[in-house]
Amino acid sequence: MNSVYDAIIVGGGVIGGSIAFQLAKRGKRVLVLEKDRLAGKASSAAAGMLGAQAELEADDPLFTLANRSRGMFPALEKELKESSGVDIELVNKGMLKVALTNEQAAGLQNKIKTQQAAGLEAEWLTAADIRKAEPLLANALKGAMYIPHDGQVSAAKLALAFTKSAEELGVEIKEFVEVCDFLTENGVITGVVTTVGEFSSENVIVAGGAWSAFLLEKAGINLVTHPVKGECFSVLTNRPLIEKTIFSDGCYLVPKIGGRIIVGATVKPNTFNQQVSIDGIATLIEKATRLLPAIKGTEWEKTWAGIRPQTGDGLPYFGEHPACKGLFIATGHFRNGILLSPITGVLMADMVEGKPNQEWSAFRLDRSVQPIFS
Amino acid sequence: MNSVYDAIIVGGGVIGGSIAFQLAKRGKRVLVLEKDRLAGKASSAAAGMLGAQAELEADDPLFTLANRSRGMFPALEKELKESSGVDIELVNKGMLKVALTNEQAAGLQNKIKTQQAAGLEAEWLTAADIRKAEPLLANALKGAMYIPHDGQVSAAKLALAFTKSAEELGVEIKEFVEVCDFLTENGVITGVVTTVGEFSSENVIVAGGAWSAFLLEKAGINLVTHPVKGECFSVLTNRPLIEKTIFSDGCYLVPKIGGRIIVGATVKPNTFNQQVSIDGIATLIEKATRLLPAIKGTEWEKTWAGIRPQTGDGLPYFGEHPACKGLFIATGHFRNGILLSPITGVLMADMVEGKPNQEWSAFRLDRSVQPIFS
Amino acid sequence: MNSVYDAIIVGGGVIGGSIAFQLAKRGKRVLVLEKDRLAGKASSAAAGMLGAQAELEADDPLFTLANRSRGMFPALEKELKESSGVDIELVNKGMLKVALTNEQAAGLQNKIKTQQAAGLEAEWLTAADIRKAEPLLANALKGAMYIPHDGQVSAAKLALAFTKSAEELGVEIKEFVEVCDFLTENGVITGVVTTVGEFSSENVIVAGGAWSAFLLEKAGINLVTHPVKGECFSVLTNRPLIEKTIFSDGCYLVPKIGGRIIVGATVKPNTFNQQVSIDGIATLIEKATRLLPAIKGTEWEKTWAGIRPQTGDGLPYFGEHPACKGLFIATGHFRNGILLSPITGVLMADMVEGKPNQEWSAFRLDRSVQPIFS
Amino acid sequence: MNSVYDAIIVGGGVIGGSIAFQLAKRGKRVLVLEKDRLAGKASSAAAGMLGAQAELEADDPLFTLANRSRGMFPALEKELKESSGVDIELVNKGMLKVALTNEQAAGLQNKIKTQQAAGLEAEWLTAADIRKAEPLLANALKGAMYIPHDGQVSAAKLALAFTKSAEELGVEIKEFVEVCDFLTENGVITGVVTTVGEFSSENVIVAGGAWSAFLLEKAGINLVTHPVKGECFSVLTNRPLIEKTIFSDGCYLVPKIGGRIIVGATVKPNTFNQQVSIDGIATLIEKATRLLPAIKGTEWEKTWAGIRPQTGDGLPYFGEHPACKGLFIATGHFRNGILLSPITGVLMADMVEGKPNQEWSAFRLDRSVQPIFS
Repeated sequence: MNSVYDAIIVGGGVIGGSIAFQLAKRGKRVLVLEKDRLAGKASSAAAGMLGAQAELEADDPLFTLANRSRGMFPALEKELKESSGVDIELVNKGMLKVALTNEQAAGLQNKIKTQQAAGLEAEWLTAADIRKAEPLLANALKGAMYIPHDGQVSAAKLALAFTKSAEELGVEIKEFVEVCDFLTENGVITGVVTTVGEFSSENVIVAGGAWSAFLLEKAGINLVTHPVKGECFSVLTNRPLIEKTIFSDGCYLVPKIGGRIIVGATVKPNTFNQQVSIDGIATLIEKATRLLPAIKGTEWEKTWAGIRPQTGDGLPYFGEHPACKGLFIATGHFRNGILLSPITGVLMADMVEGKPNQEWSAFRLDRSVQPIFS
Repeated sequence: MNSVYDAIIVGGGVIGGSIAFQLAKRGKRVLVLEKDRLAGKASSAAAGMLGAQAELEADDPLFTLANRSRGMFPALEKELKESSGVDIELVNKGMLKVALTNEQAAGLQNKIKTQQAAGLEAEWLTAADIRKAEPLLANALKGAMYIPHDGQVSAAKLALAFTKSAEELGVEIKEFVEVCDFLTENGVITGVVTTVGEFSSENVIVAGGAWSAFLLEKAGINLVTHPVKGECFSVLTNRPLIEKTIFSDGCYLVPKIGGRIIVGATVKPNTFNQQVSIDGIATLIEKATRLLPAIKGTEWEKTWAGIRPQTGDGLPYFGEHPACKGLFIATGHFRNGILLSPITGVLMADMVEGKPNQEWSAFRLDRSVQPIFS
Repeated sequence: MNSVYDAIIVGGGVIGGSIAFQLAKRGKRVLVLEKDRLAGKASSAAAGMLGAQAELEADDPLFTLANRSRGMFPALEKELKESSGVDIELVNKGMLKVALTNEQAAGLQNKIKTQQAAGLEAEWLTAADIRKAEPLLANALKGAMYIPHDGQVSAAKLALAFTKSAEELGVEIKEFVEVCDFLTENGVITGVVTTVGEFSSENVIVAGGAWSAFLLEKAGINLVTHPVKGECFSVLTNRPLIEKTIFSDGCYLVPKIGGRIIVGATVKPNTFNQQVSIDGIATLIEKATRLLPAIKGTEWEKTWAGIRPQTGDGLPYFGEHPACKGLFIATGHFRNGILLSPITGVLMADMVEGKPNQEWSAFRLDRSVQPIFS
Repeated sequence: MNSVYDAIIVGGGVIGGSIAFQLAKRGKRVLVLEKDRLAGKASSAAAGMLGAQAELEADDPLFTLANRSRGMFPALEKELKESSGVDIELVNKGMLKVALTNEQAAGLQNKIKTQQAAGLEAEWLTAADIRKAEPLLANALKGAMYIPHDGQVSAAKLALAFTKSAEELGVEIKEFVEVCDFLTENGVITGVVTTVGEFSSENVIVAGGAWSAFLLEKAGINLVTHPVKGECFSVLTNRPLIEKTIFSDGCYLVPKIGGRIIVGATVKPNTFNQQVSIDGIATLIEKATRLLPAIKGTEWEKTWAGIRPQTGDGLPYFGEHPACKGLFIATGHFRNGILLSPITGVLMADMVEGKPNQEWSAFRLDRSVQPIFS
C-alpha cells in the first residue's frame, strides 16, 4: 500500500485527533496511524480538568497558551457536537484550589494576586465562603483559590469527538498499525514504514504521547521525556456531593456528569506499567477523604492508570525536526494534554502549513533541557 | 424506616424515571424503589428508536399518544441537559421503513397515505431515491417509507437523565430494594413492604416493566402481560454507513452517535431469560446484511437482550387500581417504552394529581384483553 | 409446562448445587430453578475459606458439622473433577488466625487448647515462628493460631463444579426463572408457581440464601434471617506474598491459585444492596496493610460484594416446614456457605429421603431465635 | 537498572513462558520482558487444540516434533499443577476431523493410512459411527477421522501455569517493558535496551510471536513472517453438546470444561488488527451450525481475535542468529503455538545450553523461504 497523504499523524489520542481535525478543516488529506485502539492510553485515562490557572503559574511560558486553549472549549463543544454528534460534556462551574495549611493559603493568595494582575479572574474564598459554595468539603480547609473559568470535559468523549469529526471531514484512520521507522530522502521526510507496509507523505506529525520518544530516536532526535504514571479511581454518587472541581496538592476531585467523581492522580515516574497499585489507591482514598469526608459513603466504581509524557523542563515539545524537513513533533503535555489539545491542533496545523510563530519558541525541540527524574 | 412520601414509584427504569421527574417538577416528594440497578433491564437494552409513525398505524389508539410523546423530545433534550448535564443524544435524521418485496411496498404506500391524511409527514422513496439518500443500502430494496420525524435517542442516557434530573429536584432513589407487598386500609393504599422495611405513601405507582404483573397479583390485579425477549447486537464503524434509522420487518439498524450501529431485535415471547442465543444472532446478522451489505466489514462490538412487557391487545396499561385507591399502574409499553416515556410521565403525574383524562380510556386496566401467546 | 420431578430446588448457588448433586447421585430426578444466573450472588462473592476451626468455637453446635464438611473436600475435589472436569482449586496449606494484641493472643491460646482437647490439630506460633512461616507478615503480630487443615477453595469453581456434575447426572437447570409461590394440597407441597408457569413435585427445597426468607413467608414460615453485605477486593502478585490464609478480626487474606489475594470482608447488616462503598474499601486496605505491609506494592484487581444470610442465633436453618410436608429449607449459612455446602447437600438429601437425624436438631426451623440486628 | 541474567526472554506468552520454565528448571537466572500483559495476545486467544495429527501431515518436518510435544502434556499437567497450583484443563477425549464431502472423506482416509503407517493411532468413523460417538453432529457428515490422542487444554491457563511455575523457580517477570534494541559487542549479544533501561545477559531469546519480526530487524535478521488474524467466538451450554473436539475445513468446535464451546477460527493474513468483524462471525456461525445444528440453541458468550505468526513455508523458526552469538529466536508457530509450547521450551533451553540437535535443522533461521501471502 503506498498512498499519498498531505500529512500522516502518528498517534490516535486526543493530540493526534485534534491535529487531524484542524488539518482536515484546512482541506488536507490526512492519515492517522494508531498502534492500538484510538484514545486507548492517557487520553482516556485523563480526568479532563481544564486547569489552566490552577496548574500553571502566570510566568510559565505555557500559561498564556493554556488559557487560550481553555478559551477554545465552548466554541469547540458546539462545533464538535455538530460535526460528530458527540457531546464533550464541558462543565463550566469552576475550580477550587484548596489550602490545607496556612502556608498553602498564603501561596494561593499570592497566586491569585499574580493572576489578577495578569488580567485573569480568580478570588480567595475563606473557610466560611467554602462552606457556602461547597458545604460538604472538610471543615479543616484553610481557604481556597476559586477559579471560575477552569472547567472540565470528558477526556474520552473529547478524543472521540475529535476523531469522529476528523473522519467526517475525510480523514482516514487506521488502528493497530504501528510505525516502525521513517522514510527520508536527503533530509526530507517521505513517509513511514509500518507493520502493514509503507505510507507516503511529505508531512509526518508524531503525537504519540509518552511513546513518542522511542519512535523519534529512529530519526536521530533524542528528546528528554519521562513516562509518568498517574493512577485514578472513580466513585458513583446519587445527588452530587460537589459542584466544582476540587484541586489540592496530590489529589483532585472532578465531579462528572451523571453522578461520577473522578479522584486522581498519583505521580509515578519512569514507568510504562499501567497497573494500579494498592499503595496508590490507599493514598488517593486518604487524600480524597481528607478533602471530602462524605466520599466515604459513595459507591466504588473502578480504577485505572495512564502514562503521561513529562519533559525535562516541564514544557511540551512542539516543532519540526531540525535535520529532517517535514517531520513534526507534538508531545510532552504531561498532565495538560486535554487542556492543551485544542491549541496544539491549531499550532501544529499552522506549522505543517509553514506558518511558524515566534510565540512557540519556548517549546522548540532543540532547547536545552535536563532530566528531572534520575 | 417509615417516612411519608407524596408518591412511591416502584421501578427505576425509563418509565419510573419519567414519572418521578414529572411529579418532582410539580413539587411532590417522591421515592423511587428499584429492585436491582437503575435502568438495568429493558431501559438500557432498548435501541432508542422513536418510531411513532414507523411502529404504529394511524388508527391505533396509541398513535396520537405516541406522536405527541415523540414531539416532546426536542424540548426534553434541552430540559434534561440543563438539569442533569446528561445529553440524551437525540438524533433527528428520520427513519426509512424499507420494503423488501412488492407486497411490503404496497403496504407502505398505503400507510403513507393514511398518515398523510392524518396530517403527518411521510413520503415514498423509490429504489433510486434510496440510493441517493443512503447509498450503502442493498440494491434489492423495493422502496421505503421515509419518516422525517421518527428520530432516536440513547435509551440508557435518557433513563439516566430522567433519574438524575429527578434527584436534582429532590427525589429519593433506592436501588436493590424489592417491593414484596402493598399496604392498604379499607381499599386505600397506605404504603409498601420491601426487603428493607416499610415505606408509607398514599400514592404508589407500579412501573416495573415486564416484572409488574407478579407484583400486581398481590393487589388482586391480574393483568394480561407477556415478557417478550428482544436480542440485539452492535457494531462499530469508522465513517458512518447510514445516516437514518433503517427499519424492516424483523430487523432495524440504528446509527448511534460515535460510530455504533445497533442491530435489533428478535421477538421471543414468554421468557424472562436474558441470555442471547446463537440462533438470534445468526438471524439478525442475516437480516442486517440483506439490508446493508457493508455491515459485514464493520467491527463486532457486543450482544445483549432485554425483556419487554407486552399486553394481550398490544396497548399499555395506564390507570388506577379499580379496587384500591392510590395504586397506579403504568406498564405494557412493549417495544415503545422509550418513545412513550415522556408522555407516560406526564399522564401518570396527572392521574396522581387527580386529573384523569377521557383520552386515556383505551389504556384503562379493566378493559377486556386476551392473551396473544399461548 | 407441567413436568413431575422428584425434587425441585429453589436456588442455583453453591447450596442448591450441592443438594442437586447429592440427590442426583441417589437417582432422583431434580429440577433447579434460579431467578438470575447460577451462582450469581454470594456463592461467587465468597473468598472460599474453609475455616471450620478458625471461624467456630468448639462448643458451637455447628463445630462438628463444619469440621465434617471440611473433611469432605479432598474426596469431593476428585469426584467433581472427574464428573465435571472442573478443578475446585482446593489449597490445603493451612490458616493463621493472628493476634494483633496480647488479649487476642490469650484468646487464641485458649481456643487452641479447647480445640486440641476436642481432638483437632491447632498450634500456637510465636512472632518468631510466624516470621519463619510467613516472612512478609507484619512484625507487630503477637502470635497466631496455626490451623493446618483449614484450607480454601475457589468458591465460584465449587459452585460450577456442583451444577455441572449435577447436570451430567441428569439434573435440569433453569436460569432466570423466579419462584412466585408454592402449590400445596392439604398441607402437602405439590409444586411451585414460577414466572414461566408451574412445576410439580412432592419435594421442594428452598436454598435461596439471603433471599429465602421472602419466599418462605408465602408458605407461612417467618424465619429470622438478616441479609449481611460483605465487601471484598482482590490484588494480583507476581511471586506469592503468603502461602497460608491469614485471618484476623475483621480482615482475612486468602492467597488464591495464579497469584491473586482476596481481601475480605466487611460486615454490613440489613441490606441487599450489593454496591461496594469507599468506606468499606478504605477499611479493608488499612487492615490488610497492617497484617501484610507488602500488599501495598501489589496490583489492584477489583472489588465486589455479596449478601450473606445471617440468622438470629448464628446457626443455619435445615429442616422441613412443620406445617407443609415436603417443603424443605436450607439457608442461614452466613459466612460459612462454601465450607458447609458439602455436608448440607448430604443432609438435605437425607431429609428428602426421609432419613432425619437427631444430630440436626440444633438447626430445626421452629427453634426460638431473636433478631441480632435491630 | 543493570542486572546480569543467564538469559533474557523477550515475550511473556506461552512460548516465552515455556522457555523460562525449562531454563529455570536447569538452574538459570532468567528475566522475562513483556511489552504488555503476560499472555495478552495470541496465547490467550487460542482455543487450545493439541491437533498434532489433525493439523499436520505425516511427512511434515513438524509432525514428529508436534506429536512429541503433544505427548508431553499429561506429565506437564501434573508438574505445573504441583508447582503453580494451576490446572491447565487438559481434556483427552480425542478429536474428530470430519468430512463434509466425499472428496474430503477420501482425503481423510488416506491421511489415516499414512499416519497408521507412521505408527500413530487414527481410525475412520462412518456417518453411523459418528452418530453413536457424537449424536448431535449433523447428519450430512460423510465420516470422520477419529484421533484419540489429539486432546486440548485451556490456552490461557497453560500460559499462566508456565509463568507462575517459572516465578516459583525464581524467574523474574516484568510486564509493560518493551525491548527497543539489542546490545552487542563484536557479534556477541550483551543485553537489551528497553523502555525502562538496559538489561544485561549473554543470552537473549526472542519469543514475541507475530511481533518478533520487527524486533529482529534491528539485529539484521529479516525473517519471512506474516501476522495472521484468527477470529473466534464462544457459546455456553448446559449439558455438553459434544465430547470430542470437532475439526473441519475452516471451523473447529472445542468443548471446554464448564460448559463452553469455542468456535474458531478465521484466517485473515497481513494484519495486526485484533478487531473482530461481522463477516468473520457470520462465517463461523454458518460453519458451526452446519457441523452441529444444536449450537443454535446455546447461549452467546463473546468474541475475540488473536494474531498468529505464520512463516513463508509454514514451519516455525528455532535457532541462533547466524551473525550474533547468544541471540536466539523461537517464533512462527502459527496455529500450533499451544501444541508446540512444551517442546519449544525444551528445545530452546537446549540451544541456550549449547546442546544443538541435528533434528532441528528444518527450522533454522537461514533456510530459504518465500512469502505465502502477497
